[in-house]
Amino acid sequence: MDSKVVERGALENEKETPQEQEQEQVVNPWEVAAKDGGKIDYDKLIEKFGCQRLDPSLIDRVERLTSRRAHVFLRRGVFFAHRDFNEILNAYERGEKFYLYTGRGPSSEALHLGHLIPFMFTQYLQEAFKVPLVIQLTDDEKFLWKNLTVEESRRLARENAKDIIACGFDIRRTFIFSDFDYVGGAFYRNMVEISKRVTCNQVVGIFGFIGEDHIGKYSFPPVQAAPSFPSSFPHLFSGKDNLRCLIPCAIDQDPYFRMTRDVAPRIGYHKPALIESLFFPALQGETGKMSASDPNSAIYVTDSEKVIKNKINKYAFSGGQDSIEKHRQLGANLEVDIPIKYLSFFLEDDAELEHTKKEYGSGRMLTGEVKQRLIEVLTKLVERHRRARAAVTDEMVDAFMAVRPLPNMFN
Amino acid sequence: MDSKVVERGALENEKETPQEQEQEQVVNPWEVAAKDGGKIDYDKLIEKFGCQRLDPSLIDRVERLTSRRAHVFLRRGVFFAHRDFNEILNAYERGEKFYLYTGRGPSSEALHLGHLIPFMFTQYLQEAFKVPLVIQLTDDEKFLWKNLTVEESRRLARENAKDIIACGFDIRRTFIFSDFDYVGGAFYRNMVEISKRVTCNQVVGIFGFIGEDHIGKYSFPPVQAAPSFPSSFPHLFSGKDNLRCLIPCAIDQDPYFRMTRDVAPRIGYHKPALIESLFFPALQGETGKMSASDPNSAIYVTDSEKVIKNKINKYAFSGGQDSIEKHRQLGANLEVDIPIKYLSFFLEDDAELEHTKKEYGSGRMLTGEVKQRLIEVLTKLVERHRRARAAVTDEMVDAFMAVRPLPNMFN
Repeated sequence: MDSKVVERGALENEKETPQEQEQEQVVNPWEVAAKDGGKIDYDKLIEKFGCQRLDPSLIDRVERLTSRRAHVFLRRGVFFAHRDFNEILNAYERGEKFYLYTGRGPSSEALHLGHLIPFMFTQYLQEAFKVPLVIQLTDDEKFLWKNLTVEESRRLARENAKDIIACGFDIRRTFIFSDFDYVGGAFYRNMVEISKRVTCNQVVGIFGFIGEDHIGKYSFPPVQAAPSFPSSFPHLFSGKDNLRCLIPCAIDQDPYFRMTRDVAPRIGYHKPALIESLFFPALQGETGKMSASDPNSAIYVTDSEKVIKNKINKYAFSGGQDSIEKHRQLGANLEVDIPIKYLSFFLEDDAELEHTKKEYGSGRMLTGEVKQRLIEVLTKLVERHRRARAAVTDEMVDAFMAVRPLPNMFN
Repeated sequence: MDSKVVERGALENEKETPQEQEQEQVVNPWEVAAKDGGKIDYDKLIEKFGCQRLDPSLIDRVERLTSRRAHVFLRRGVFFAHRDFNEILNAYERGEKFYLYTGRGPSSEALHLGHLIPFMFTQYLQEAFKVPLVIQLTDDEKFLWKNLTVEESRRLARENAKDIIACGFDIRRTFIFSDFDYVGGAFYRNMVEISKRVTCNQVVGIFGFIGEDHIGKYSFPPVQAAPSFPSSFPHLFSGKDNLRCLIPCAIDQDPYFRMTRDVAPRIGYHKPALIESLFFPALQGETGKMSASDPNSAIYVTDSEKVIKNKINKYAFSGGQDSIEKHRQLGANLEVDIPIKYLSFFLEDDAELEHTKKEYGSGRMLTGEVKQRLIEVLTKLVERHRRARAAVTDEMVDAFMAVRPLPNMFN
């Protein structure tokens, strides 16, 4: 699993000819590329993937069921699509609990803001619904797809676990595992059950693998599918094969779970439900050529206040006009403005956000002022994360990753 | 892994058109089919696979190094081919030890004589060289290829373990494991290391998988490859990454280990050495249409004396002549005679075997007499196996399958 920053250009697993690439957007777990010169068309993606838009009535229901205000990522449409989320809420309303499953492919030392989004949201879901959570660190995937050793992947998994724990998960309800450590036993048996029900042609169709790809790639989808089934965690869910699973993730992970949902009823489980997010845009905007390997395309949780300030002032793509005169006259184009996009992810105050958009869109507020506010918001967020992460000890990582029962996970 | 009875006819994983099937013999882990109307051409197989014939000088060396007579399966050419067996002997001569690895795909309740061959031979190797042994029960493979549940495959693995233990393995030097139970941790990490170095095109070329095959098949070869590397067994071989591995198996398993040998140096291990056997012929002979699912095509270790007698008298293909007169005149055709084949596998006494072949081949001995002797030999073998198996308790199975160090395995 991974949380994508939208990028274009030289991509791994490239299958399309240059012409095709220009014609169609490509979204899969390893590649997110908008149509040439444009933004990701999420309506088209929903239609192509066959998931549903998360409508306001569902968000109202979440607020009613959890007796608290919906998370800003729900209110602002960051999590915008779903599969069977209504079924999860129906079950919850009947008094049935569920469990959450999310994950991360540990390919880099430091996380950027886009990586935090599913975890911040999952932490909210765990707290609001009081449900257990499993977090998969796909160190095997990153070893298979990247130029990393097994040991380096495992080390990154532990490092990333610290950032994840810093998001505030409840240790009484959270099990974090690395594939290289945890795969085996009941989990392996589920992997093999799944593998038997998915053909080579299907994974080629879903993921675009080619004959020259190594079989590690062909073997991996069942590894990401297995945590969708409660029996993969006998220490947590023994005798609870009927427990439903809800997966918060970025929408590029949908192909894995389309496959999983196809297999689920054939091996006697509920289809996992999904709640899916947009991609977090790069600083340079959603349309330009960007690269996740360019440190200036994203804000990292390790960036200092000075670096954040510099990155935003220098690189954050502005929808403002070229001159102050023109700006006062025409206002900013909020559709392409990155400071406004970022604020809409991370500025909690709805009224302030609306005010800022109105003032900036009409030209009364300048880009510099909006960027200044964004710098404040992100510096505060990153500072808070850094403090929380510094407090995460190796013993805490061990405790979250210990294969253990969670006796009070549903209370 | 599995030990094949030569069969022809309707086969799983059939890729060839009927014409091609008639033209060429097919030998892979799931299919052993001779050229139409003929026997398996082992010379051709050696040439095609690129392994070596086991020449008499190697057998002499084994006798010298182990200070005991070579096993009848070596003397009679049942184990007839190898890869780097000389390297194993070189290392052994230098004072380096090695470990043995063999296995079985647990698809049936009762084993037939063909299934016993690799285990009888491996037991001899273990005793003669005083080396540790790992035995893989590929319950995952059988689940993937056959119409079995995970639980049924695991049950068969334990049942088959009893037959294997009955072959006389030394518990101080033997670790038996089922994939569904043991895969994980270091073993899984090696699986993934291997998977990354084998392309889809390669497994298609080696194993003949097709697009309609499920990805379980594509994922499996690294599972059978992993035990070739000592680091897959940290409880046994921790810090001994340089330890060599010798794999006794039927030659249909060669494709797995060709693949493994290709990968080995790229991940820092010795290539596993192999010592490979012929296929054990079915009662009806090596050329007719036979099926392993026909209980009358093989002698099972569960067959009673009466059943053995009946099967051999009724079904064992005879190279004798149609009438006694003709037989006395022409003698038996030993090349196609199953009683003689079976005796050459299981009659220990070289002089008696030579005498029988001479007398029978010249027509002085009749088929009935040879069959009578075979019935005695097999009844004794099966009786001995049955007694040994009856003495194998569940506690012994647990003990052999316990993940534990083997402190004196090299002494």
